[in-house]
Amino acid sequence: AEPCKPSYCGLTEFVGTGIGNTIGFVIANVDSQLLEAMKLEKNYRSIGIVGGRTGAGPQIMAADEAVKATNTEIVSIELPRDTEGGAGHGSLIIFGSEDVSDARRAVEVTLKELERTFGDVYGNDAGHLEFQYTARASFACNKAFNAPVGKAFGLIVGAPAAIGVLIADTAVKAANVEVLGYGSPGNGGTSHSNEVILMVCGDSGAVRQSLIAAREVGLQALEALAGTANATTTPYI
Amino acid sequence: AEPCKPSYCGLTEFVGTGIGNTIGFVIANVDSQLLEAMKLEKNYRSIGIVGGRTGAGPQIMAADEAVKATNTEIVSIELPRDTEGGAGHGSLIIFGSEDVSDARRAVEVTLKELERTFGDVYGNDAGHLEFQYTARASFACNKAFNAPVGKAFGLIVGAPAAIGVLIADTAVKAANVEVLGYGSPGNGGTSHSNEVILMVCGDSGAVRQSLIAAREVGLQALEALAGTANATTTPYI
Amino acid sequence: AEPCKPSYCGLTEFVGTGIGNTIGFVIANVDSQLLEAMKLEKNYRSIGIVGGRTGAGPQIMAADEAVKATNTEIVSIELPRDTEGGAGHGSLIIFGSEDVSDARRAVEVTLKELERTFGDVYGNDAGHLEFQYTARASFACNKAFNAPVGKAFGLIVGAPAAIGVLIADTAVKAANVEVLGYGSPGNGGTSHSNEVILMVCGDSGAVRQSLIAAREVGLQALEALAGTANATTTPYI
Repeated sequence: AEPCKPSYCGLTEFVGTGIGNTIGFVIANVDSQLLEAMKLEKNYRSIGIVGGRTGAGPQIMAADEAVKATNTEIVSIELPRDTEGGAGHGSLIIFGSEDVSDARRAVEVTLKELERTFGDVYGNDAGHLEFQYTARASFACNKAFNAPVGKAFGLIVGAPAAIGVLIADTAVKAANVEVLGYGSPGNGGTSHSNEVILMVCGDSGAVRQSLIAAREVGLQALEALAGTANATTTPYI
Repeated sequence: AEPCKPSYCGLTEFVGTGIGNTIGFVIANVDSQLLEAMKLEKNYRSIGIVGGRTGAGPQIMAADEAVKATNTEIVSIELPRDTEGGAGHGSLIIFGSEDVSDARRAVEVTLKELERTFGDVYGNDAGHLEFQYTARASFACNKAFNAPVGKAFGLIVGAPAAIGVLIADTAVKAANVEVLGYGSPGNGGTSHSNEVILMVCGDSGAVRQSLIAAREVGLQALEALAGTANATTTPYI
Repeated sequence: AEPCKPSYCGLTEFVGTGIGNTIGFVIANVDSQLLEAMKLEKNYRSIGIVGGRTGAGPQIMAADEAVKATNTEIVSIELPRDTEGGAGHGSLIIFGSEDVSDARRAVEVTLKELERTFGDVYGNDAGHLEFQYTARASFACNKAFNAPVGKAFGLIVGAPAAIGVLIADTAVKAANVEVLGYGSPGNGGTSHSNEVILMVCGDSGAVRQSLIAAREVGLQALEALAGTANATTTPYI
């Protein structure tokens, strides 16, 4: 597990850092010329910014809790092709708020939640697996994954992508879940990462069962390539 | 040369592993909901899956032999931007078959052929070169590279891309070959890899001559950047 | 700082190497079949080729000086997703000329200028920052960044992208500059790199002031993630 290293930083905009070389800022009053160039769907003068080198799912799920807990809106989620030489994504998430203190609080919650949302991210030298679950999806899951707000949602990621195909099949066979989306390297859904990503919704018990089955199969597959794949922090599903 | 490490794996879907962190699976009866989400051009209930972190050409050429040798069809080939921090691609190849034993055989042949098809992949700290040749292209080369089925086909790859431009020129000047396609970082043909890729066809002697000339120039160029560039396994062209 | 290592290479097309695993070639008379496949906007029989694994901005700014100093034209600039496991780009730049000696001179100037243009590229284990300035933009800055030819131009890059958003705001607030463009991981401007990129123009004093302010903030932010971020060569702004 990569340690949290919240270094001192004197910038007023600085909020903190988190797992995956993630960093968070707030801007109280974004320059109007910049705001126009950013082409956000909805303009807020106060924004919260969270972005990391490693991980998109963990940051998005963490932001989902933040948007539930604060008076903010998710204005954009982007997925660079990154993970510092690995097979997946980094992330760039922008919150909007009327009051900068709300944006700051959203960034703080997101950075703190990463400790939990990296819990079912497993990796070894050959690739990684990621599983995410929420009993009640909010606006970050909706924006990034098309998850229905208020419903149970699950995310299944396997890299290399061949493992992702296998565990996507496992996941949908294991329980009565609905497929919301499927991302693969060439279909535009992954920024060309070496992952297959499946998004499912349904009854909360079914979604959890689906994730647990996919995780069991995924770990056997990934470990066949390169040995033990440890969780980044503590599994939560 | 990276060793083959076919680890034990108890999953019924597991077929084996190969060079480049490549792994192969079969699914006898793909879930219909997943099959729909995958948006394959043609649906088979039985699929074979081969994907690796490093290498697309080697896996595609290996799959080309597999599709010749078995009663299967290539249903999709996708090229993630990967190579584990390197300049090129990983791969995700899906075979379809009526009978799962055919898909399994195709995956087995592909994994075994990798030992040969990594033969003209050369690398050092600055980049890589790849050359592939077949006297008779089949459906994997056709799908991935637009190669006419049954004709001699050659693939030339240079990374960083500047080397690829140079050896593409060398290749077409060295023999009477026809250019089937040219991929570069910004033209949509490479998932933004740092490669230039040239696909040629023609008389089998001409194609080989073209590849050998490009390989000679490419090695001098790549070695000017970072010293000796060794073959991954044993050169076959 | 990565050392320049201009190795011996016997190829007549070889010009030299530079920082960032950059290599340069000339082709006196590009094969017409290849030229057609490359789909360049304008065809020259003599081309100069410069491409690297690490860096796009430094190579583009260096090419900008080269195009000012020689009788050549920039015919294409492409940005692979690279930096050898880092968060940014490599590069592929093609010069065209009537006379091959002009293309050779352009490549030589570009490779030499890299020593300067890597001056304000700062990096540590978590990411990088890049700042570029010219008092008088030429055709490489125009092609790559839409910079008005003859005017002062500045480039601001931050990775991970969250830092880029912050320093883009700093840059536009620090001086009276005009935003020419904004690139982010998901907006098509970055080949999915984990960067936010801002291009500005204006009065030369204002552009420099804007870059200096962004650099000061960017270094504090990047160093909060992973400690000291050193310049690759010697800062020039």
